[in-house]
Amino acid sequence: MKALRFERNQLRLVEDAPVPRIEGEALVRVIVAGICSTDLEIVRGYAGFSGTIGHEFVGTVVSSPDRSQEGCRVVGEINAGCGLCALCRAGDSRHCPERTVLGIHRRDGAFAEFLSLPARNLLVVPAGISDRQAVFTEPLAAACAILEQVKIHQDHRVAVIGDGKLGHLITRVLATTGCELTMIGKHPDKLALSEGTRRIEVRGLDASGPSHFDIAVEASGSPDGLRLAIGLVRPRGFVVLKSTFHGAASFDTSRVVVDEITLIGSRCGRFAPALNLLATGTMGVEQLISAEYGLSEGIAAMKRAQEPDSLKVLLRPEQYG
Amino acid sequence: MKALRFERNQLRLVEDAPVPRIEGEALVRVIVAGICSTDLEIVRGYAGFSGTIGHEFVGTVVSSPDRSQEGCRVVGEINAGCGLCALCRAGDSRHCPERTVLGIHRRDGAFAEFLSLPARNLLVVPAGISDRQAVFTEPLAAACAILEQVKIHQDHRVAVIGDGKLGHLITRVLATTGCELTMIGKHPDKLALSEGTRRIEVRGLDASGPSHFDIAVEASGSPDGLRLAIGLVRPRGFVVLKSTFHGAASFDTSRVVVDEITLIGSRCGRFAPALNLLATGTMGVEQLISAEYGLSEGIAAMKRAQEPDSLKVLLRPEQYG
Repeated sequence: MKALRFERNQLRLVEDAPVPRIEGEALVRVIVAGICSTDLEIVRGYAGFSGTIGHEFVGTVVSSPDRSQEGCRVVGEINAGCGLCALCRAGDSRHCPERTVLGIHRRDGAFAEFLSLPARNLLVVPAGISDRQAVFTEPLAAACAILEQVKIHQDHRVAVIGDGKLGHLITRVLATTGCELTMIGKHPDKLALSEGTRRIEVRGLDASGPSHFDIAVEASGSPDGLRLAIGLVRPRGFVVLKSTFHGAASFDTSRVVVDEITLIGSRCGRFAPALNLLATGTMGVEQLISAEYGLSEGIAAMKRAQEPDSLKVLLRPEQYG
Repeated sequence: MKALRFERNQLRLVEDAPVPRIEGEALVRVIVAGICSTDLEIVRGYAGFSGTIGHEFVGTVVSSPDRSQEGCRVVGEINAGCGLCALCRAGDSRHCPERTVLGIHRRDGAFAEFLSLPARNLLVVPAGISDRQAVFTEPLAAACAILEQVKIHQDHRVAVIGDGKLGHLITRVLATTGCELTMIGKHPDKLALSEGTRRIEVRGLDASGPSHFDIAVEASGSPDGLRLAIGLVRPRGFVVLKSTFHGAASFDTSRVVVDEITLIGSRCGRFAPALNLLATGTMGVEQLISAEYGLSEGIAAMKRAQEPDSLKVLLRPEQYG
């Protein structure tokens, strides 16, 4: 099968990659996959991954130990835990120390014609959600995770830093709380996608203003974004670190200590709340699609995803592949 | 009166400083004061303070708008808020943007014969607590603050990084929860002060071990301590940043994001719980006193406090002054 693989520090399209068949797991034919910033970081060396990249997808179950899944349209949680440790038994395979992660850590990913995942990782996509919406489930779940980590209510002032696809998804998810949102970024055309929505204001990076936000979410993927976030929150405020980037960041710890700021690392989320939100039809995720490519054009698609004006770039193994 | 002042980047003993008389506040004669690492940071330029330093003290009320306080032995909360803003009205003058802070920010401090504080900042010290114990109220309150910020129970494994006076106070306070404590530092003689106590283990900085702590408290005052703390906690663990230091620190944000670690800045605490703990007689704070000096020897006392083997150094304005 075709697969977009990162091996020996090189990204290449492999025509004859073996179909992944893992004993006891489900085999999924990929309908459409999405390129995430993490994929771009991986091809820069983040996480030291080698294999087929990609972890955002919607697909059809070809075979599964759970026969009821066969033929269903599904999305899949990307962390596959050992199933035995205390974390897995408590339902949190996302932090299992032995876990593999689809297209990120010791498990071939979604930029391929087929992928393999444990049956328990798969969730059936309701009929009302299109493929182009469903492919946003994984990043939308990551945005939803914030709501489980910080209590946000409608009196809160919340800043989202970063006008990329993750920033927009976070803004849309947090808007469901009724809080007052300010999206901060450096691309006016991207910011415009969320501007004007009820209680969402946008501003440039330089217009940082006073430290009066209750919560700031760092989704810009840069150390500057982190420093800005720390500067924007009120005493006893919360900074959510949402984006992974390669390398260390430095910031003024005395601000954090003196003003008793809490920094919360936030990564993946549960898929069910994200599917529920997509089913409401209010997320407007399709606005965030910049381009679609066939898998054969995977290298070009990755280049496109890196351009400053790009938001979500999709890959379709079948239609064009 | 005598006062130890930091002015024009120079620490000096002033013989004829005016007695601080602030309209509507209480005047307190200092019995004994304690040198904190923050005082050492201030004379290195942290916080840009100019005036009489010192914020840990026990004293006798000379005069007060609240006449019932006069003649009483007191300790005092160091943040004096405006009394009008939303934070002050909610009882949190510790974060009032207009606050002054005793010996730290726009308010002369405790290394003097007298100091001034609002009457509402003062708490009467119960008779069973000695002066040498009561002078630890402020740093002990800072240690107690951790218990209000993170839930700690007896199944938790907690690491305290730093074997200085704050590290020992934190260890003693956290030990009241029954949790399993590991104190990590680089001075075997200092670590020995807490070794052998029930469920307290000590180890050197190099013996960092696996990332299995539920909570790590950074009390070493160094960026290395922060990085160690982040490395020690389990996924979804908590790092409490307790020490202020001058300048920025850098750390690996991807560990924080991927393992969803929470970093909590923690500064001052409420005095009442600290006085309650001192009243139990179990804190052993007097073990932590390395030396006592008269105020006239204040410069020498500050030097002594900076020596690597020093823990708490006390200053007595009257006895020797």
